[in-house]
Amino acid sequence: MESVVIYADYLSQPCRAVLIFCEIAKISYKFHEVRVIKKQTLRDEYAKVSPSRTVPTMIHGDLILYESHAIIIYLIEKFKLKDNWYPNDIIKRALVNNYLHWHHMNLRLGCGWYVFNRWAGPMFYGGILKDLDVICNERREDAFQVLERILEKHKFVGRTDEVSVADIVCYCEIVQMLMVDIDLKGYPQLQIWFDGIGRIPEVQKVHKTFFRLLPRLKL
Amino acid sequence: MESVVIYADYLSQPCRAVLIFCEIAKISYKFHEVRVIKKQTLRDEYAKVSPSRTVPTMIHGDLILYESHAIIIYLIEKFKLKDNWYPNDIIKRALVNNYLHWHHMNLRLGCGWYVFNRWAGPMFYGGILKDLDVICNERREDAFQVLERILEKHKFVGRTDEVSVADIVCYCEIVQMLMVDIDLKGYPQLQIWFDGIGRIPEVQKVHKTFFRLLPRLKL
Repeated sequence: MESVVIYADYLSQPCRAVLIFCEIAKISYKFHEVRVIKKQTLRDEYAKVSPSRTVPTMIHGDLILYESHAIIIYLIEKFKLKDNWYPNDIIKRALVNNYLHWHHMNLRLGCGWYVFNRWAGPMFYGGILKDLDVICNERREDAFQVLERILEKHKFVGRTDEVSVADIVCYCEIVQMLMVDIDLKGYPQLQIWFDGIGRIPEVQKVHKTFFRLLPRLKL
Repeated sequence: MESVVIYADYLSQPCRAVLIFCEIAKISYKFHEVRVIKKQTLRDEYAKVSPSRTVPTMIHGDLILYESHAIIIYLIEKFKLKDNWYPNDIIKRALVNNYLHWHHMNLRLGCGWYVFNRWAGPMFYGGILKDLDVICNERREDAFQVLERILEKHKFVGRTDEVSVADIVCYCEIVQMLMVDIDLKGYPQLQIWFDGIGRIPEVQKVHKTFFRLLPRLKL
């Protein structure tokens, strides 16, 4: 079988989520570092690799995927990971899919875009976009409230009883907020869940670079 | 089997996408109209129905889903629609998933959020958010270019040879741009594909209300 090839940046949340599943799947993958902040994703030669010029991008044989959730689902199915990560049961899978699609315009817009705007905005847009800042703050607060309500009733964010892909992608997004010193004190259930997911060995391994660099990444 | 219950607004793109699959699946569903522009999604009684206070929301037995892509995948799997809509093959499914996850932050941000900002921004935000307008325009142009390049090589936007869920959700988003009189003349392959998807009977049926009201919806 051909090698899985991953183009990724350890400082990107969806990249880390993909790398965690490479570790969980125990596959030997070829890793190519592509740094977003250095505009390496925008280079012409990278367009030949990634049709969307984004990280993560995965190549496996003829298959090119450039969306982290799609990559992770593919890895889980291809390498037959345990059913809890992405359940076969139609209802459990629907709950996980509901989280994965909700994630983009809610948690990711509230966390990832907020940090990106403050960190890279001056370089990419010539400054922090103020309207975007407002929208991101609103979205993040709404998203945290939704997650808190879910975790008052369920063990995991995908409304499942076992840990799933939803928890991993959610953690990777929220941990990015440590760059702006956010805490979760208004969200006690979210804090307990966050600490638990952070103790998963593969999550810890892939976050080593992020935590090592964190003091220098503070905004 | 319990009835499928759908809360939706015919003027919302993801709602129409869900309703198209209800029609394709030929299921008798209970339809409740919830109007976004009248802030009916924000009412307290609607929070009891939809945890995210958004449309579409689907209820089937104990299952509540509030993300259109997750609802559609559930309907396809539960009602055993033809394999082309959401393939079982791991690679074909990965391609469709890649489109579905790409959609949110690219095509939807570029089309749906653009129109929402111009249409409802004055009511929801006290005005059109200018930064958001700029970001939406950039995203839409990038997204249309990505779609054009896909359609130069493949028959359908999910990089598949048969029509899939990706084509339906993509169409519903682009058609919304008729509210601002956009045309696709710079994107010839996208125009041909768009016209083709618009001829699918279920797509036409669900878009009747939108096209009837379109002259009054122009921005």
